[in-house]
Amino acid sequence: MMKSVSHHAGGSLTFETRGAGFSDITREIGRWLDEHGASDGLLNVFIAHTSASLTIQENADPDVLSDLSDALERMAPRGHAYRHSSEGPDDMPSHIKSMMTSTNLSIPVEHGRMTLGIWQGIYLVEHRDAPHQRRVNLTFLGSGLSD
Amino acid sequence: MMKSVSHHAGGSLTFETRGAGFSDITREIGRWLDEHGASDGLLNVFIAHTSASLTIQENADPDVLSDLSDALERMAPRGHAYRHSSEGPDDMPSHIKSMMTSTNLSIPVEHGRMTLGIWQGIYLVEHRDAPHQRRVNLTFLGSGLSD
Amino acid sequence: MMKSVSHHAGGSLTFETRGAGFSDITREIGRWLDEHGASDGLLNVFIAHTSASLTIQENADPDVLSDLSDALERMAPRGHAYRHSSEGPDDMPSHIKSMMTSTNLSIPVEHGRMTLGIWQGIYLVEHRDAPHQRRVNLTFLGSGLSD
Repeated sequence: MMKSVSHHAGGSLTFETRGAGFSDITREIGRWLDEHGASDGLLNVFIAHTSASLTIQENADPDVLSDLSDALERMAPRGHAYRHSSEGPDDMPSHIKSMMTSTNLSIPVEHGRMTLGIWQGIYLVEHRDAPHQRRVNLTFLGSGLSD
Repeated sequence: MMKSVSHHAGGSLTFETRGAGFSDITREIGRWLDEHGASDGLLNVFIAHTSASLTIQENADPDVLSDLSDALERMAPRGHAYRHSSEGPDDMPSHIKSMMTSTNLSIPVEHGRMTLGIWQGIYLVEHRDAPHQRRVNLTFLGSGLSD
Repeated sequence: MMKSVSHHAGGSLTFETRGAGFSDITREIGRWLDEHGASDGLLNVFIAHTSASLTIQENADPDVLSDLSDALERMAPRGHAYRHSSEGPDDMPSHIKSMMTSTNLSIPVEHGRMTLGIWQGIYLVEHRDAPHQRRVNLTFLGSGLSD
């Protein structure tokens, strides 16, 4: 099915994290698509930081998110003697965890909705201990509802 | 070289996996591009699951794929005491392995062909032990062969 | 804000690496956008190799890059007994490190500039010991400065 590619919407959302952990931002992104009249195309989600990142993961059992946090911790242990330590013991592990996950995600959109699997949620992952304000840039390319 | 962006094609392919392992899906994706008359632009490949994922890897020596499986196993060992264990000992490691690899890949298309390196293949990676049916969503944005 | 999607620019840049390590390629990519008259849309950066990869990381303290290299080394140790060893002891670890990082990145563009965070740089990561020539394919979809 071939459709027109006539619309580009760009913008950003800001999230306040409460320190290290996973925040489900699927609903906020879906609302942004609604507000911008997106119909069919591709949505790119980009996080403008290097100590917080993105991932698409299971949204059913919160234990999954705790186990994912633990797995990242094992790959980037806080106790390791890092060269870069001036910003605190949680900073360098945060960069490693960001590199292991995603800075951007590109998600298909059909009839105004992301074609996520039923168990998929989009998560902003804060890797720092302290709460932070995080900016997520959104780009939609495709057709609009008014086309 | 500036070209028009007039075509959007969206759809999906379904693959039957035989349990944990790498499946080369490059040919099926190339055929989908052909069938949809894609010429020049960008193809996004998105997997609608959280216990299977995508990666682009060497397609020459099958030993590479076995070593990659082992590396993922070391990062997400099955024997670990995960909180999330109700879906079997292979489920939580599967989510970790998905997070470490990719849920989507965006690949340039020129003259109807993906501009993959000569040794690059697109792999669907099944992380669960049992065979599964997996859905891969494809989105092409760019120009069509009939333009 | 809805804009037209009328321009597609595709091309590639070639980089000579000096062996294993991170190379900041942000400036070269920015220049490519300028040369192609890109205004607003999405840029995809794709590396056509499986033993070198891409990541967006902190560009302030070079110690961060050394610590990231060490982290990748711990996840893909050179001393491990890999099946695939015919191309040298640094080859299979390179494939693993590529799988753990990114083969492509999609970055929003506004007014001709990528909307990177102030500390974000785009890095080509060479995983092999020897210098290599690496090809990075660039795709811009959006509006042009002349629109």
